[in-house]
Amino acid sequence: MRHRWELPVAAMVLSVCWWFVGTSHAADREKLLSEPGVYGTFAAFRIETDWGKLDQATRIANLTSFRGVVEQHREKLAIDSYLLRGLSDHADFMLRVHGTELKDTQQFLVDLQNSAFGRYLTSVVLLSGLTKKPNYVPGFPEQLKADLKGPSESGPYVMVLPIRKDTEWWSLSQEKRAAMMQEHTEAALPYQKTVKRKLYHSTGLDDVDFITYFETAKPEEFHALILALNKVKEARHNRRMGNSTLVGTVRSLDQLIEVLAQ
Amino acid sequence: MRHRWELPVAAMVLSVCWWFVGTSHAADREKLLSEPGVYGTFAAFRIETDWGKLDQATRIANLTSFRGVVEQHREKLAIDSYLLRGLSDHADFMLRVHGTELKDTQQFLVDLQNSAFGRYLTSVVLLSGLTKKPNYVPGFPEQLKADLKGPSESGPYVMVLPIRKDTEWWSLSQEKRAAMMQEHTEAALPYQKTVKRKLYHSTGLDDVDFITYFETAKPEEFHALILALNKVKEARHNRRMGNSTLVGTVRSLDQLIEVLAQ
Amino acid sequence: MRHRWELPVAAMVLSVCWWFVGTSHAADREKLLSEPGVYGTFAAFRIETDWGKLDQATRIANLTSFRGVVEQHREKLAIDSYLLRGLSDHADFMLRVHGTELKDTQQFLVDLQNSAFGRYLTSVVLLSGLTKKPNYVPGFPEQLKADLKGPSESGPYVMVLPIRKDTEWWSLSQEKRAAMMQEHTEAALPYQKTVKRKLYHSTGLDDVDFITYFETAKPEEFHALILALNKVKEARHNRRMGNSTLVGTVRSLDQLIEVLAQ
Amino acid sequence: MRHRWELPVAAMVLSVCWWFVGTSHAADREKLLSEPGVYGTFAAFRIETDWGKLDQATRIANLTSFRGVVEQHREKLAIDSYLLRGLSDHADFMLRVHGTELKDTQQFLVDLQNSAFGRYLTSVVLLSGLTKKPNYVPGFPEQLKADLKGPSESGPYVMVLPIRKDTEWWSLSQEKRAAMMQEHTEAALPYQKTVKRKLYHSTGLDDVDFITYFETAKPEEFHALILALNKVKEARHNRRMGNSTLVGTVRSLDQLIEVLAQ
Amino acid sequence: MRHRWELPVAAMVLSVCWWFVGTSHAADREKLLSEPGVYGTFAAFRIETDWGKLDQATRIANLTSFRGVVEQHREKLAIDSYLLRGLSDHADFMLRVHGTELKDTQQFLVDLQNSAFGRYLTSVVLLSGLTKKPNYVPGFPEQLKADLKGPSESGPYVMVLPIRKDTEWWSLSQEKRAAMMQEHTEAALPYQKTVKRKLYHSTGLDDVDFITYFETAKPEEFHALILALNKVKEARHNRRMGNSTLVGTVRSLDQLIEVLAQ
Repeated sequence: MRHRWELPVAAMVLSVCWWFVGTSHAADREKLLSEPGVYGTFAAFRIETDWGKLDQATRIANLTSFRGVVEQHREKLAIDSYLLRGLSDHADFMLRVHGTELKDTQQFLVDLQNSAFGRYLTSVVLLSGLTKKPNYVPGFPEQLKADLKGPSESGPYVMVLPIRKDTEWWSLSQEKRAAMMQEHTEAALPYQKTVKRKLYHSTGLDDVDFITYFETAKPEEFHALILALNKVKEARHNRRMGNSTLVGTVRSLDQLIEVLAQ
Repeated sequence: MRHRWELPVAAMVLSVCWWFVGTSHAADREKLLSEPGVYGTFAAFRIETDWGKLDQATRIANLTSFRGVVEQHREKLAIDSYLLRGLSDHADFMLRVHGTELKDTQQFLVDLQNSAFGRYLTSVVLLSGLTKKPNYVPGFPEQLKADLKGPSESGPYVMVLPIRKDTEWWSLSQEKRAAMMQEHTEAALPYQKTVKRKLYHSTGLDDVDFITYFETAKPEEFHALILALNKVKEARHNRRMGNSTLVGTVRSLDQLIEVLAQ
Repeated sequence: MRHRWELPVAAMVLSVCWWFVGTSHAADREKLLSEPGVYGTFAAFRIETDWGKLDQATRIANLTSFRGVVEQHREKLAIDSYLLRGLSDHADFMLRVHGTELKDTQQFLVDLQNSAFGRYLTSVVLLSGLTKKPNYVPGFPEQLKADLKGPSESGPYVMVLPIRKDTEWWSLSQEKRAAMMQEHTEAALPYQKTVKRKLYHSTGLDDVDFITYFETAKPEEFHALILALNKVKEARHNRRMGNSTLVGTVRSLDQLIEVLAQ
Repeated sequence: MRHRWELPVAAMVLSVCWWFVGTSHAADREKLLSEPGVYGTFAAFRIETDWGKLDQATRIANLTSFRGVVEQHREKLAIDSYLLRGLSDHADFMLRVHGTELKDTQQFLVDLQNSAFGRYLTSVVLLSGLTKKPNYVPGFPEQLKADLKGPSESGPYVMVLPIRKDTEWWSLSQEKRAAMMQEHTEAALPYQKTVKRKLYHSTGLDDVDFITYFETAKPEEFHALILALNKVKEARHNRRMGNSTLVGTVRSLDQLIEVLAQ
Repeated sequence: MRHRWELPVAAMVLSVCWWFVGTSHAADREKLLSEPGVYGTFAAFRIETDWGKLDQATRIANLTSFRGVVEQHREKLAIDSYLLRGLSDHADFMLRVHGTELKDTQQFLVDLQNSAFGRYLTSVVLLSGLTKKPNYVPGFPEQLKADLKGPSESGPYVMVLPIRKDTEWWSLSQEKRAAMMQEHTEAALPYQKTVKRKLYHSTGLDDVDFITYFETAKPEEFHALILALNKVKEARHNRRMGNSTLVGTVRSLDQLIEVLAQ
């Protein structure tokens, strides 16, 4: 993806960036993305059709406000961006926000919606969950634990599947759930290398119990993984809601803004 | 959050406030929030996208009408305000209204929607319930009753979960329901201190049976509470509807208006 | 609620009223509201947000057309009006229309939507049912029959609950249904005085089987009535749809128009 | 309903009609409405609120395009029109189109939506089904077969109930289904004279299995018919979807256009 | 795609079109449409009502951008077009896109939505699946395998039925599923000649498990096929969602553009 902006505009945008880079301290992204006790929020937006009817200079000016808001909040938050348009039918783009306090995330999203760009956005999905230490892994066999430590390839494809458990699941004993989760984990193992996974616990924080996040370079491997997971006993306790799968591609903020500017 | 209004405007708004404080008698908020036999109404609104396209002076003038309507009705009603934007996807803010007569609440909400600000609002959730003396607590063991009297920390986070019971629940004997509610209460006890709860009975008054209201400073504690409640037998009689959880933060009317003015 | 219209406007509206009172013969309201074989239609409307942006003179002129259409059809129909705004989230007001021919009701609602005011209305709920002689009462014990004849207090609160029966209900024998309905009736009896009820049979005429209509001065009594009805066996055959309860207050046409004019 | 158009306009409309009557060959309506192997399409439309804000001359000009499109396609299709407004809450009018080729129906509906009037229409329901020889009647007793040949009264009321069968129904043997359909038919027989019925098979062609079409002068008879059908065993295999019943009145194209022109 | 923002837009667009016609190699359509391991995406769009209010010259100019985007991406993708309007109620047209990489499809759909025509489109359905080697056919009897190789007639009618399997299906053994699929295949065999079928596996890639695509010249044969398939045991594991069937006719891009230009 190459630079498509003319020089004066690009320069203006870059100078704004510079200003933010110069004054903010980036959150410890590595820690936010790997530690337990962090809130992850998935915010998917649809862009109003009016947006497409603005002239390009106005769109670029508005997108500058978008970039400004994101940069300003990077002090406390790790913010990832995704293009959903063309792979999902109910949203155009998604932000994944990691932070230690949900109110920081709220402030970021409020500032985004109050920005010049935000006037053209409708919030269509907003899910929050918590990263936690693995519930069941400590009781798994040592070999399985070791296998789970292998690296995973990332992007460019992203899939987010919100899952609600049925009421029976929660009434099962910890042992029964652990046994089922071991079977689940073993079924997923062959896809450990090609599909990167991250889990968020969201019971009470929204209308689902888990937000499952996936990245892969090979959607067919992700498809095979979900097929394999559908076949284990634990899957009978999953309820997925009607129109809930989000599919897209990982994009840097610059890349996302470039698509939205066109 | 810094003051972003210019001084003359802020002064104008303050003078309006003063006028209302000077002429209205506040409802007995403490009694409305603690006694049985009070109606609690949860009204969540989405703000039209046109709002964001108004100039700020017009927005502030309109918000003055919002403040005026709220102050005017504080004579009879206890009105709390919450910012949902950034934590819920289907509403921007919520009002919780306590009153002894539903028609006072209706008059307030009608006046709000007829105000200059109200022209930009869509009512997306409107749930009413009644506070009642505890149904099951009188039969609980003395120790449990005593434990329930401990204080709870409040805000800034708020969660509202409307719940409908299945038909089987209502056909159970009072004893069976009391036993299940005791188990429920014992499971909730560890979170008594960190999560504040309030219950509204709404069978017939809307499409749910209970409106459960929570405040906490630690969303992870609320998450753990709901997980614990999911595991007791009573939970099997709960039906939660698709997109019904409301999450936000407690905001004074001034704070809410400041966000909406930007 | 005080008169907020300026005198010349009020005079104009009153003179229009007078004209209609002078030229139309009112339907026999008493008969339409008490006899079997009458169609009752519940039409709830949402008012477009554009309406609130009209100047008041235009709103009043449009509301005059509303009043005119209602008065014109009172020759054949009994028309009651209700304010839902502030107590229901999906509609602003409701009309209940009783007539002996559904096509008269259709003509009224078509004329309403074709009127100057109707241009701002969206029809969000439209349910029709038939009043019938009681199905099960003739077989009830004499004492119960006598008790059912007591008077009921009316308004100002109105609740409309559409109900669909499950398929099993219809396959039960008449005796089994009669026994369950007797239990239902006995459970409702304590609320006979404080909650007024009216039943419409609507199988085939819309997507529900019954439209249950309630008026009360004490919503807490209505709440207790529905709780009591939830506990009888017949309730297990009820299916209520997601967002179907309508709650509001009885308003004369003049009172409703006054609210809408503001 | 009296003529409300002024003479020059009415004359213009009539002359357009004349032109079409003069140049097109009407489809063999009788055959299309009675033979098996014909496709029936039910298209219900909502008219945009902008329509009501046009001046009447523009509305009439646009409705002339509506009439033109209908007349033009009457060469191949039998087209019936219905007013739903005032009796259904999700559509304003409905067209029923019979033809031997679905692509002719598609061309008609495309031409309609591309017409000046079509710019104001939203297609809210579109169901297609096939008329077939009776599946079960050949095996019925002779007396029942004879009874089914009696005439039925038609309109002005029309009801369309789309029905989906459960998966169990389709796995039953032909004999079991035939026995249940005989019970169904016997239950319907008392309403043969007052309620006219027509059946369309639509499995695969849309999301339902059958489109059941009814006309009657007595909605209470139709109500009694559906109640009777709910009580037979076959009804346990019916699934009706949430908001699917369409109710209206039969109107000639001229009558429908007159209502829409006001 | 470089530098699109210069002012002589029309000239540039034409030159870009020319450039692509001159320099692109059409994707190997035959291979994309027949081989396993190819992604098929079904994108259905609704056209905004504003579109119909544009003058025809503007519509044609915008449609030129549509054609340009499609032609440009034919280098990597096989793109088929369908007219749904008049046969489906929730979309106006559909594109079926085959490619070896989902990101190429995303880029195409993003370019389409960013085009002048795309400003008037709402994406209402977006489903992606993967073509795979037959799962069960290798174990079928030789005669059945031979029969499956017969040719099928194509279009003009197209039907797309997304299907989700129930959780029980996935927990069955491979043998049990193979036996059921053999019964399914035998039931479908009589329609092999008149109904062309293609299967896409989409578990995880959207909210369904399979996208089933059909073409036929005889909708009544397709109806009979689906009826036959409903009767086999495998059908009991199918869940079809409310409003999911898409019906239309195959149209070349030129034919589709001609309809949209009117």
